[in-house]
Amino acid sequence: MKNVVSGCSVEEAMNMIGGRWRLLIVSYLLEKPKRFSELRRDIPAISQRMLTMDLRALEEAGLVQRTVFAEVPVKVIYNLTPDGLRLEKVINVVQELGLWLKGRHVDAEC
Amino acid sequence: MKNVVSGCSVEEAMNMIGGRWRLLIVSYLLEKPKRFSELRRDIPAISQRMLTMDLRALEEAGLVQRTVFAEVPVKVIYNLTPDGLRLEKVINVVQELGLWLKGRHVDAEC
Repeated sequence: MKNVVSGCSVEEAMNMIGGRWRLLIVSYLLEKPKRFSELRRDIPAISQRMLTMDLRALEEAGLVQRTVFAEVPVKVIYNLTPDGLRLEKVINVVQELGLWLKGRHVDAEC
Repeated sequence: MKNVVSGCSVEEAMNMIGGRWRLLIVSYLLEKPKRFSELRRDIPAISQRMLTMDLRALEEAGLVQRTVFAEVPVKVIYNLTPDGLRLEKVINVVQELGLWLKGRHVDAEC
């Protein structure tokens, strides 16, 4: 039973943060609230469509808040909610793992 | 520069452990070395093809070792390498996140 429960938790979490970009997006939002275009600059490899979809999923999960400012042109800012800030701990260990993985080979892609 | 480096580490790590199943497979291999069929029982939702591909990727990354025993029928065992055991820390925080995500809603899928 214990294993079913713990495996299920991993699955639940990976449904939310698995995938190539979501954790990366959150890591850039940890720096400060950002506009869509800033996130695009942070992650040049992501397509506009994927960034839109991932931001929407994070918003629906209550991890990211999207605020529209009635300016001309309209300004939209994305920031982490208090719930979203809980991902910092995950990002830290994943970053550590990434550094170690990169250290193992010289042909890192980024 | 710091942000480029840290973002890159997240990307590097997610290339390896992102996706729906890999971390889950590793979490079940943390229990003990297992046969392919045992992993299939642990994760009923994964297809044979995906499990094969993910195990191969983990093996190529040096995180999982595949050992063939010359018995009849042939026995194949998968176990984590010392490098693969480093993923335990990641699994622990991801599991914690999953438990918390599940706690937020009652319609958890697993």
